[in-house]
Amino acid sequence: MKKLINHPQNVPAEFLAGLALAHADILKVCLDPVYVVRVDAPVPGKTGIVSGGGSGHEPMHVGYVGKGMLDAACPGQVFTSPTPDQIEAATRAVNGGAGVLHIVKNYTGDIMNFEMAAELCQERGIEVRAVVINDDVAVEDSLYTAGRRGVGVTVFAEKLCGAAAQRGYDLARVEALCRKVNGNGRSMGMALTSCTVPAAGKPTFELGEDEMEMGIGIHGEPGRERMPLLPAAELTARMAATILADLPFRGGDEVIAMVNGMGGTPLMELYLVYGELERILRGLRIRVARRLVGNYITSLEMAGCSITLLKADDEMRALWDDPVLTPGLQWGI
Amino acid sequence: MKKLINHPQNVPAEFLAGLALAHADILKVCLDPVYVVRVDAPVPGKTGIVSGGGSGHEPMHVGYVGKGMLDAACPGQVFTSPTPDQIEAATRAVNGGAGVLHIVKNYTGDIMNFEMAAELCQERGIEVRAVVINDDVAVEDSLYTAGRRGVGVTVFAEKLCGAAAQRGYDLARVEALCRKVNGNGRSMGMALTSCTVPAAGKPTFELGEDEMEMGIGIHGEPGRERMPLLPAAELTARMAATILADLPFRGGDEVIAMVNGMGGTPLMELYLVYGELERILRGLRIRVARRLVGNYITSLEMAGCSITLLKADDEMRALWDDPVLTPGLQWGI
Repeated sequence: MKKLINHPQNVPAEFLAGLALAHADILKVCLDPVYVVRVDAPVPGKTGIVSGGGSGHEPMHVGYVGKGMLDAACPGQVFTSPTPDQIEAATRAVNGGAGVLHIVKNYTGDIMNFEMAAELCQERGIEVRAVVINDDVAVEDSLYTAGRRGVGVTVFAEKLCGAAAQRGYDLARVEALCRKVNGNGRSMGMALTSCTVPAAGKPTFELGEDEMEMGIGIHGEPGRERMPLLPAAELTARMAATILADLPFRGGDEVIAMVNGMGGTPLMELYLVYGELERILRGLRIRVARRLVGNYITSLEMAGCSITLLKADDEMRALWDDPVLTPGLQWGI
Repeated sequence: MKKLINHPQNVPAEFLAGLALAHADILKVCLDPVYVVRVDAPVPGKTGIVSGGGSGHEPMHVGYVGKGMLDAACPGQVFTSPTPDQIEAATRAVNGGAGVLHIVKNYTGDIMNFEMAAELCQERGIEVRAVVINDDVAVEDSLYTAGRRGVGVTVFAEKLCGAAAQRGYDLARVEALCRKVNGNGRSMGMALTSCTVPAAGKPTFELGEDEMEMGIGIHGEPGRERMPLLPAAELTARMAATILADLPFRGGDEVIAMVNGMGGTPLMELYLVYGELERILRGLRIRVARRLVGNYITSLEMAGCSITLLKADDEMRALWDDPVLTPGLQWGI
């Protein structure tokens, strides 16, 4: 294992220490229990937004804490759910009296721990709602998940709900928006290589020199098919077809699109895939209204990409353009 | 070779096609010869800023075209200098009557081709100045370079000169600023792995399972020393010490710092290194006024990082905060 680290077990904590030093104007890192929170939290009267999950997917989630996005994020160990006490502490820290939305990716451990934290907060009189993101069309059940996994749509949900809360949407409206985003978004990923969890010290799985894994999960969970590596055009067409058929997306739709890198894939390749994707969508009269191309929800140094499409309405497009100031996503400020 | 590509020889062109589709609001890609230019070029009366170099370092340079940074960038094939006709066409396209600055990294081919282009432009009555960036403290001469290589300071020069030109600095002032930035900036890089140029199809070099290359160049040129992998704290301390001694930086200085990923290193590791760096600098009473942590000048999918420090004055700090809207760097807009 070759990584820029000190001790494998200290990686998440030392990462957060660096993040806190780099972005002291945006966020602070609280310890015991660990969570990352906006410097100005709680914002009185604003609906709070909290997310979290295992580390190793950066910039998600801790890199999305800041104005116009998350009020707090709870990072677990690498690829490991955060604990209920982290989530409870973060929720209490961001509650400005208007309640808190939990955005939870569909992994069994995450759901259980967010539910426990929500109960603890509600006992203390904080209103908490939770929306589970389950946008991955690749497989129905998976290693850590009953039902579909939560992946790229989480980034969109955090941006759009964060903007809505910043505008003054109450908890019920933010929750409804989050359900609409989840209902209208679909993703699929693929990998060229595995990744190595620091504490494990060896690759999560092995792929042959000419193989790829279609439908990979963000922790390296098996996908749909292990198959020979395809050219980017064909690879993109297959992923797009699976995503498009699922919602389904139709001619005349507008979408917010993401071509996301898994962490070890150069921008050059991601934009190449984006070009293939936009040409396919244009051919179907689907217009890409907004897009992200880059590393937004990663799996350590895994090589590969995922595609996310969100059928967007006027409300989502407007919220997308609202200012955001986080380490991982920034515009308009 | 496992990459998200179609044909190895088409990678740069297909990358640019995707970039153009994704960022049509910011830039356009011109063909025959190839360059990337701001949509609103030429801006009448504004000093033009052009850079360029081999592809494979994205987002640099083409991802830095846009308001507040470059007017145009000329991408060569992967790790290959752009040709004089590309640079000449780009320079002519951005000349708003106030002349054009060429920001050139110190590689022999780049310098030769930028010089030829500048002569051709001057024959047509366009005033051109060139500043050569040579900030890499690792080695004095290298595989493609006489003198020091140009690396991370290029990102800072493009941001700061772009802001200055946007403010209305004339060519002489922008040139002087660029020389000041180059004179006050130093960098050093290291690699954990090699990278694979698509057209070559195999890794540029080989590193053993426990080895790293200290002082690596951005094309995989040999550095100072091949040595056993060090913990991040020691690695950062060694790189920082070499950089700090060179200018030299002193207690009381303010710096703009960058911890840059080579393309295949996760954000988690880059922030961990940033934390080590800022602690070292604080111990020396050097204040980090601004910073970048992420992938800004890469070497395809190489794993590793580089550190850049720029001794910043009030002018540089103010220009740094000016708005910028490019695919690779964006704030304030």
